[in-house]
Amino acid sequence: MNKTAEISTSVILRLEYNHELVSISLITATLSDSGADIVAIDVNRVSKTKTVNDITINLRDQHDIDDMVANIEKLQGVKVIHVSDQTFLLHLGGKIETQPKVPIKNRDDLSRVYTPGVARICMAIHDDITRAHTLTIKRNTVAVVSDGSAVLGLGNIGPEAAMPVMEGKAVLFKQMADVDAFPICLNTQDTDEIVNIVKAIAPSFGGINLEDISSPRCFEIEERLNRELDIPVFHDDQHGTAVVILAALVNALKVVNKKLNECRVVMCGIGAAGIACSKILLASGVTDLIGVDKHGAIVRGTTYEHKEWNWFAENTNPHMLKGSLSDVIKGADVFIGLSRPGVLKVEDVKQMASDPIVFAMANPIPEITPEEAEPYVRVMATGRSDYPNQINNVLCFPGMFRGVLDCRASHITEEMKVSAAYAIASVITDDERNEQYIIPSVFNQLVVERVSQAVIASAIESGAARRNLNPEGVIVK
Amino acid sequence: MNKTAEISTSVILRLEYNHELVSISLITATLSDSGADIVAIDVNRVSKTKTVNDITINLRDQHDIDDMVANIEKLQGVKVIHVSDQTFLLHLGGKIETQPKVPIKNRDDLSRVYTPGVARICMAIHDDITRAHTLTIKRNTVAVVSDGSAVLGLGNIGPEAAMPVMEGKAVLFKQMADVDAFPICLNTQDTDEIVNIVKAIAPSFGGINLEDISSPRCFEIEERLNRELDIPVFHDDQHGTAVVILAALVNALKVVNKKLNECRVVMCGIGAAGIACSKILLASGVTDLIGVDKHGAIVRGTTYEHKEWNWFAENTNPHMLKGSLSDVIKGADVFIGLSRPGVLKVEDVKQMASDPIVFAMANPIPEITPEEAEPYVRVMATGRSDYPNQINNVLCFPGMFRGVLDCRASHITEEMKVSAAYAIASVITDDERNEQYIIPSVFNQLVVERVSQAVIASAIESGAARRNLNPEGVIVK
Repeated sequence: MNKTAEISTSVILRLEYNHELVSISLITATLSDSGADIVAIDVNRVSKTKTVNDITINLRDQHDIDDMVANIEKLQGVKVIHVSDQTFLLHLGGKIETQPKVPIKNRDDLSRVYTPGVARICMAIHDDITRAHTLTIKRNTVAVVSDGSAVLGLGNIGPEAAMPVMEGKAVLFKQMADVDAFPICLNTQDTDEIVNIVKAIAPSFGGINLEDISSPRCFEIEERLNRELDIPVFHDDQHGTAVVILAALVNALKVVNKKLNECRVVMCGIGAAGIACSKILLASGVTDLIGVDKHGAIVRGTTYEHKEWNWFAENTNPHMLKGSLSDVIKGADVFIGLSRPGVLKVEDVKQMASDPIVFAMANPIPEITPEEAEPYVRVMATGRSDYPNQINNVLCFPGMFRGVLDCRASHITEEMKVSAAYAIASVITDDERNEQYIIPSVFNQLVVERVSQAVIASAIESGAARRNLNPEGVIVK
Repeated sequence: MNKTAEISTSVILRLEYNHELVSISLITATLSDSGADIVAIDVNRVSKTKTVNDITINLRDQHDIDDMVANIEKLQGVKVIHVSDQTFLLHLGGKIETQPKVPIKNRDDLSRVYTPGVARICMAIHDDITRAHTLTIKRNTVAVVSDGSAVLGLGNIGPEAAMPVMEGKAVLFKQMADVDAFPICLNTQDTDEIVNIVKAIAPSFGGINLEDISSPRCFEIEERLNRELDIPVFHDDQHGTAVVILAALVNALKVVNKKLNECRVVMCGIGAAGIACSKILLASGVTDLIGVDKHGAIVRGTTYEHKEWNWFAENTNPHMLKGSLSDVIKGADVFIGLSRPGVLKVEDVKQMASDPIVFAMANPIPEITPEEAEPYVRVMATGRSDYPNQINNVLCFPGMFRGVLDCRASHITEEMKVSAAYAIASVITDDERNEQYIIPSVFNQLVVERVSQAVIASAIESGAARRNLNPEGVIVK
């Protein structure tokens, strides 16, 4: 996570010093000696003998902070009140707020927005419940739901600790696709309870984005919600990843001039993302897909305790290859890793077919580092922002939900996911596409527009779209 | 609900007409003849033979719309596409949105707001869960929770139809007190389920505002949530009403120069609001309180099916008065109606003590109209905005939650409610106070400030406040 360190070493040091015992110049000198780069010194308050300063500094490394504080506190008459860094300051009070779209300036406004005028809106919805999609926030609002059981790489840290991630997601939803998203972190990890709760709160929302829910519960939760709700339910860790990987693979194959239905793909790590990714690849024409996990290749005929693995065994590995990753990787065109650091060896890569494609998604440390792989792979992608070809879910979920909300989709079909992937891939033109550039930047403005349009078209085709086509969307009374 | 009608008669008429068959002047003339007052004519689109116009008009009465449309459609070559009024237009897409407080402009922003930087914030909360109050939206966010079982005067209209009210509440929260509120309308009316759901979603919120939940379920739901959650839970229909009524009564008694502990108060309508109102009056020194419902005065010794009524019988009506409203109203100083239109007769008012105070809160039609009561009553208040002395919950909930969020209260005590009431009353000075002005306007800027300060002071005193007093509220790492 060096990147994290590097970007979060701008810190503010609040310290109190007795200016009869120590000089500010001695303090700044000590800071510099500790590797601190002084940006600014702001006086917070001054008394007869004491001064409190906020000193903004840059540090080479997060870990230098403690040494620096120790050195400063060795000085006589100096007390460090606290150290805070930019990332923490930015999170104070959370990252989103709810804003009125209609100000209440006077009595008339009040009577329209609230009682008594609002009663007529309530009754209009009571008469025709589909009007909730037009007359309430349901039209543009998504719940970002997590139980905090599998947050980023951090594991089961609970609902409160998961909130900053879900809030960040809400920020991205709004900024990238003008979708209003609200984080709901649940104080339960019981599958039935989660399903019932999400169903119960659904009236407020036009879509549900499930996030960071551990496997295998995430499969049943998404499956049941999809069956029992009439709004789209999307588990981003599964399908967001799958869509973006397909997008990258589509472009990578163009670079090496191969076809999806002619490739042998080895999928390493058959968890939530690995299974979703396999499903979308099969739906897109891949026929020769081999799944590998800790115990080796998943093969028909074996009975696995993990329900999804039995499905997997039935529907993949047509040549029934057995053995370890090193065994099945031989002759493979594509390696997709959604597993653990360092599981793919240079020797394995050397065994792959010509022009090998390697997507090493383990974060922060990939299945094989680009440095090691570089001499032997043709196209390489990771989940990291500090290498070319970053596979990032942010490329999918904003446009996906923009699309389903706009066409009022009742659910998200496999076809909609596939077309989202091709839409992402399409952002890179034939002239631009190369080994280092198979996937657009998360800041590419075109992505959301292309994805949402593709999703809408596919939703209309598959009958998932419900938008009433009254062009202005104005209610007929 | 005349008010509703009056304020929502500005409508937009979208019509298509064949300009070879009919002239716009004939159309406007017909509109005028139908009682329409033409504000503006906007051309929406024009083809060779047809024009589509949006005509904005004012109408004397909501009910004239249908006649007007009928008259217009009689004209040859005219088709009304739709009619929409301002209140509906204002509700399109709902009334609130979620806004990022921290824009993501570049890769560094992304790494701080989302991954990988956010991981450090998550772990900080994981290490010390109380940091959720500082590092997430919990610090300033309230859930407005309803099951749609008792919405305004509209009854059990369900969660989707309740949304516009809850959204309106969220608008008021933000605009009046800068509280971020989010509407959660539940697709269940089962007490246990509601309690479990609210407990499960609580990690995202710093407070819970229960709204429009029918009695008696609302008592148990609030009671259990208050016991089982560590954030404030406030059922506005009960306690908001109670606080504002106490505020109005405090000022009304000053006008007639009587004291709370010397008054006989007759409370008519012992539902959720009536019981909460009685409790706050007893907590404020009222001793001679008589509750009346359909079956007459509630008296000790009788066993009532309604659990709360047994409590009520034990704690009120010291002189054990029996009989109907007309019986017990004799000699009463104060009448508080939270019941049904017209239950208080002029004859009853004539029987009250000198300088009678009448709060007739039934909406939209009070227990007795100010017109009837005026000759015999000294101070009169209603729930309506078109008479003096409107008792409106908007005077309480924004400041109440501003206060509990700022001091991070774990719950709301009866003392906090009483001090909120006195704070509202205090906004009107001795010089200003009179029969027509016992309660401030909902637009009075002073109210939120006074209420929140009083609530904070009372929360600190009663030990409900948990705010860590680190002055800048900056996280110490």
